[in-house]
Amino acid sequence: MRARNLASAPALDALVQAAAFGDGAARVRAAGRLMTLLEQAPHRLPELYRTLPEERWQRPRLVLGITGAPGSGKSTLVDAMVFELRRREPDWRIGVVAVDPSSPFTGGAVLGDRVRMMRHATDPLVFIRSLATRGHLGGLSLGVKGVLRVMALLGCDVVIVETVGVGQSEVEVARIADTVGVVLAPGAGDSVQMLKAGLMEVGDLFIINKADTPGADALHRTLLQALSLAPTDDLAAGPDGVDAHAGAGAHAAPHRPDVLLVSATAGDGIPALVERLLNEHAADPARGNGRPDVRQDARLDVREAVLESARRRLERALDAEPGRLDEILSGALPLEAAVARLFEEQLNHE
Amino acid sequence: MRARNLASAPALDALVQAAAFGDGAARVRAAGRLMTLLEQAPHRLPELYRTLPEERWQRPRLVLGITGAPGSGKSTLVDAMVFELRRREPDWRIGVVAVDPSSPFTGGAVLGDRVRMMRHATDPLVFIRSLATRGHLGGLSLGVKGVLRVMALLGCDVVIVETVGVGQSEVEVARIADTVGVVLAPGAGDSVQMLKAGLMEVGDLFIINKADTPGADALHRTLLQALSLAPTDDLAAGPDGVDAHAGAGAHAAPHRPDVLLVSATAGDGIPALVERLLNEHAADPARGNGRPDVRQDARLDVREAVLESARRRLERALDAEPGRLDEILSGALPLEAAVARLFEEQLNHE
Repeated sequence: MRARNLASAPALDALVQAAAFGDGAARVRAAGRLMTLLEQAPHRLPELYRTLPEERWQRPRLVLGITGAPGSGKSTLVDAMVFELRRREPDWRIGVVAVDPSSPFTGGAVLGDRVRMMRHATDPLVFIRSLATRGHLGGLSLGVKGVLRVMALLGCDVVIVETVGVGQSEVEVARIADTVGVVLAPGAGDSVQMLKAGLMEVGDLFIINKADTPGADALHRTLLQALSLAPTDDLAAGPDGVDAHAGAGAHAAPHRPDVLLVSATAGDGIPALVERLLNEHAADPARGNGRPDVRQDARLDVREAVLESARRRLERALDAEPGRLDEILSGALPLEAAVARLFEEQLNHE
Repeated sequence: MRARNLASAPALDALVQAAAFGDGAARVRAAGRLMTLLEQAPHRLPELYRTLPEERWQRPRLVLGITGAPGSGKSTLVDAMVFELRRREPDWRIGVVAVDPSSPFTGGAVLGDRVRMMRHATDPLVFIRSLATRGHLGGLSLGVKGVLRVMALLGCDVVIVETVGVGQSEVEVARIADTVGVVLAPGAGDSVQMLKAGLMEVGDLFIINKADTPGADALHRTLLQALSLAPTDDLAAGPDGVDAHAGAGAHAAPHRPDVLLVSATAGDGIPALVERLLNEHAADPARGNGRPDVRQDARLDVREAVLESARRRLERALDAEPGRLDEILSGALPLEAAVARLFEEQLNHE
């Protein structure tokens, strides 16, 4: 794998130059290849910084996270948001990153071999990339960050990151995005359970999609109640379960997130949603999910790249000499001594 | 945090001895504290092996994974499975590990401070533990393995691991469990999308819960069709999307998983489900998800513990000297040289 890439791919710095300063189709093609390279080798992200002057280190102006369960209509909503952003700001470039194996944005050709977006496929100011969710989470998170940097090189003003489901990947998105919208829809799973399963903590804004279908009003009421009962920093049930919170209506969170109703297929509520998302970050740049300054942001990427690179080297060394795992098991080699020996061997390899 | 634990907790080897050979409530209490210790410091798992003779290294006889979307009734199903297992094998000890922040198995007292299971809370042969899903995935995965080892020390014959949602955590469960059941239910999200989002690949068995409610038959037909169309090793949509597969009915997978219909609340179909799950592993011990031998299994845990321990050490070193991240950013210090320098410093700390 690695040998093939080295043989056929241009150097990372050449791709960075072409993605940042190239023209037309060649620029987009270089960006796609750079994304593929950074998805396979996310620890190489620091090379991108070294290749560019610091004023080109920026992320896109705004990174929006959109998450929710399968069936909530996330992809249709993202499509409608792109349409509205293009209408509202005709000069802006818009990126979409789908971290979702079920995403319909797959099979096409825009940026690499796993990209497509139906009605925007021929729009020269819309860039779409789909990312696999395989591999360990540190690598995935760094891979998404790499794609965002390349979107910035392409001049994207806003990038929408779409993730599926509940769990670890949603927490990671919340760390990457400036603002996170959680999509709910009538009939798409038990929404109260879904909120408890970690979605409530990551949402800056809650979006009830399919608001024109039966059950939307009931879902809206349930959501508002759940949000008003939620403690700000802890959603764990009390010792007596759900009932323990039933009388705690006065326990309103100071920064209670908004709830918007939309219909992505009909386009209803989409302009208000986009307005709200654009204002969210502008209104309060210092909030928790807000973007740190460019240099601090780059430092965090470098930190993760160092850890990822170290992990890859140590994995190779461990797998080349499996006998040492038995030494640790028998107690002949304490774990900390084994780690130290690995470090030492890596130095002798230099 | 660490200092507090060192001051108040007995040594890991004393907890292992008490969990493996102690009596009654003291044994269970030691097991709960050992689980907490291994959840906070998963890289210490190899110490458990060193403390025990190799014949006590075993995992539980059978580890069953149960996964599915919120709203599919997983927790009720797990509860019904425990009931049936106890009825069928009165001498067996049963463990439940809920890797799910929305699990109702929280707030009680059986093993540590985040455990409960309604009707089994007073059953001395049922052990329940809830695990948080915070932290990076490697640590979480190792934490679950630690809990499984402690369940084995308590003499558990079968342990059910319940996880929520779709995504990374489900793939990890598939690696840990001997057999994985995917739970679907009418109305719990768009089931076809959910299957595409990674669930189809991890399932050895598909369980349609709430089979007595409207929509169950339609869900059953949709699922059977999706399974018969699924290639064995790749579920990616073709370049033309879903339609590309519509005519590929002859493309049946050689090991097509079974589909069972149950109603967890009524208890319908639960005996057949448990029978099927117990037989799944017995029938084909060599299949992909099957359990490797005890020593190989322990080696993999040690491998992950070494990587986790190294990560923790390198994180501390990086955070103690943030200036070096700037050196990497400027290009003054190449990434690989920075990694080597970190390794070297760790040696000098010895």
